[in-house]
Amino acid sequence: MKLELSRVVQGCRLGVLTELGKTGQHSLETPGCLLYTRCASVPHLTQDTLHTLTDLPAVTQVTLSTLAEHQEVLEEFKEGARKFAGLHDTVVYCSLHDPAAPCPPGYTTNKTVSVWGSGGRIELSVARFMALQAAVRPDWFASMSDGDTGPNPSRKRVRKAVDRTLAHLDEGLTLQQKMEGLKEAVLWGVCEGGDVCEERVRSARETAKRPVGGFLLDGFQSGAMANRLRQELVTKTTAELPEDKPRLIHGVGRPDEVLECIEMGIDLFESFFVYQVTERGCALNFPYDIDTDPELAVLDKEKERPVGVDVAQENGSSDISPDAISGGDSGDAPSKTTMTRFEMDLRDKRYREDFSPLVSGCGCYCCQHHQRAYVHHLLSANELLGPVLLMLHNSAHYLGFFKAIRRALAQDRLPELKQRVMQGHRQEDGQ
Amino acid sequence: MKLELSRVVQGCRLGVLTELGKTGQHSLETPGCLLYTRCASVPHLTQDTLHTLTDLPAVTQVTLSTLAEHQEVLEEFKEGARKFAGLHDTVVYCSLHDPAAPCPPGYTTNKTVSVWGSGGRIELSVARFMALQAAVRPDWFASMSDGDTGPNPSRKRVRKAVDRTLAHLDEGLTLQQKMEGLKEAVLWGVCEGGDVCEERVRSARETAKRPVGGFLLDGFQSGAMANRLRQELVTKTTAELPEDKPRLIHGVGRPDEVLECIEMGIDLFESFFVYQVTERGCALNFPYDIDTDPELAVLDKEKERPVGVDVAQENGSSDISPDAISGGDSGDAPSKTTMTRFEMDLRDKRYREDFSPLVSGCGCYCCQHHQRAYVHHLLSANELLGPVLLMLHNSAHYLGFFKAIRRALAQDRLPELKQRVMQGHRQEDGQ
Repeated sequence: MKLELSRVVQGCRLGVLTELGKTGQHSLETPGCLLYTRCASVPHLTQDTLHTLTDLPAVTQVTLSTLAEHQEVLEEFKEGARKFAGLHDTVVYCSLHDPAAPCPPGYTTNKTVSVWGSGGRIELSVARFMALQAAVRPDWFASMSDGDTGPNPSRKRVRKAVDRTLAHLDEGLTLQQKMEGLKEAVLWGVCEGGDVCEERVRSARETAKRPVGGFLLDGFQSGAMANRLRQELVTKTTAELPEDKPRLIHGVGRPDEVLECIEMGIDLFESFFVYQVTERGCALNFPYDIDTDPELAVLDKEKERPVGVDVAQENGSSDISPDAISGGDSGDAPSKTTMTRFEMDLRDKRYREDFSPLVSGCGCYCCQHHQRAYVHHLLSANELLGPVLLMLHNSAHYLGFFKAIRRALAQDRLPELKQRVMQGHRQEDGQ
Repeated sequence: MKLELSRVVQGCRLGVLTELGKTGQHSLETPGCLLYTRCASVPHLTQDTLHTLTDLPAVTQVTLSTLAEHQEVLEEFKEGARKFAGLHDTVVYCSLHDPAAPCPPGYTTNKTVSVWGSGGRIELSVARFMALQAAVRPDWFASMSDGDTGPNPSRKRVRKAVDRTLAHLDEGLTLQQKMEGLKEAVLWGVCEGGDVCEERVRSARETAKRPVGGFLLDGFQSGAMANRLRQELVTKTTAELPEDKPRLIHGVGRPDEVLECIEMGIDLFESFFVYQVTERGCALNFPYDIDTDPELAVLDKEKERPVGVDVAQENGSSDISPDAISGGDSGDAPSKTTMTRFEMDLRDKRYREDFSPLVSGCGCYCCQHHQRAYVHHLLSANELLGPVLLMLHNSAHYLGFFKAIRRALAQDRLPELKQRVMQGHRQEDGQ
């Protein structure tokens, strides 16, 4: 794996990760996102349906929380999660937790972390973690880490989390050398440190000393801390990391937060946000086109305020992100999250007789073939085709957003893009 | 619409319905089935995914129960259910009730019938029924009928049901002539009569006197009456019907029952059975190949007995069908039905490490790309891709079954096919 940065402007990095995958045939442009999966499949979509989308990222994220209980099956199968799930040719990145499912706190010990599958909790030592990774056979995997510092932990607890995470990394690096099927995989070091600045710096600095392929910034999910604090901590973390290795952040998916993180030197994101939006029956419809007629940019934001979003959320300066994952849910059901201003609620009655596509001009299968009224109708009747169509559109929209980011960076126009994204909604009829 | 029968052997009719659709460009081979839909879409599948299947029938069934609450929307939309649902070019047949959803009894009056959508009950007079049909704009539609005779009705109630159904038909025929968008549609007359032989005969005879395009046999769903009684009543009904018009039966979907009905002169079936099998997490895997090595036909049935099917169900001579739709459920959720011996329960742990396709040799997308273990895994995790893949396979298998029936009829080999279907399961590994 090689990172080639073509442009670094005020901390924003434009580049491409090359020589990915077993035979080095894949590449991934950055900033970019990974394909989110549950059970190693992009939720709701067959691979053929998924591949009607253009600009699919070359890397698919799978998570141990949805695979751990199938360890025996994967070991018996022998060919890894990619083949097990029937995925087309893709680089597989395996991380610990499903970013769209809550992970109950309080189950981490000195030697173990726990993941939660549909059958309940599974406790993993580093040895079991590595054996599981060997069964999954990823091209990339995140080191085992202790991110269980919750809100308002003690400094001592945070220090312990950083120490444990480094110890897991060292143990993992040693084990990896002996394990067939994992030797060639890229190990990503995990930077922890909760909301304690010195620990964040120490975690980044120490991880950077290890022979890792890239860095994963953990514990920055929406709602975990105040926005300004997150900005400070992410900035201090990336400052400690070498320029020539990629930085992936977990738990950040909202378009506004993605843009902020890019300004702080982040290269890669997950795409669980697409799934969360889909699960609440919503369609992404924020604008990211900066090349069209400038008159279009002057939209009446009030007019297009999405239904059900309160004023606090509209306020971009709100310090605590309003759509924190609500913890406490258990089992395999994704936690219901709060609607953001980047989407519209297709369950709302206002779309009952709206015969326009979800987003005018969108080239996805859903927008080419169906209208809002029909998707509303499917959702009202709880027909699964509703989520299928939404997942398709939301993926297309989100991937288009990242493409727009890269284009804007290449043209030194990121501030313009940011303004466009923040200013509000595309006009409903696209005129 | 024209029915051309190419072969009638011992009551079984092989033929083709031609000149279907607005411009007469479609045809449908019989015996055949209609495409089942909910909300006017084949459950869970995008049109593109659906069209990866070969031999799709040219006629799609939509139901007023999933469309009635959208009457205003459809009227505003003006272009009918086919366009509203974004269906590819297809003939649309609109009937009253969703065959896979329970319809609570006791809400039928002299002048109205009720359908149950996701929002509850909607009462329809003939005038409203016809207005709704005009909004749906089908190519075929079933006349409004009173099938609400339940189990053990009085003779008086059954007579009333036949009278009402004929009255609704006469009123509908008169109204149809005045209604734009319905004038060209083919109206199907409905034969009712519960379990009373004389009423069945009267209903068929009287309906046959009207200028209908085809005949719908209603009230014969699995579990509605003893099997022998059903055979008698269906036979007496078809005996009253003209040879040159098609006969469609509602509520019959099990492969064994389909074969019996074909022997009694039925041409068309619904395909809700595919959806029911999918909803219980099962995959169709009964054999219908009669051209392969005859040694294959000698299967050890005991060995392949599907899990969870009790002996009573295996007994083909059981007089009451064991998988009657369990009534009493309400709302839009499909009623959970009992597994039959034509399917395997993919939720069962025995498939955890089974890396073979659902059905060896099946050409469907699911069987080409996935193994039983993976589908089991998706179902365990409640990931929607599980039902998506099952719906695809089950549709392929069911359509293949009807194709095999037509081939067998053409070769005078229906008894062989029947034996093959009844004898049990394909060997798991296809050897």
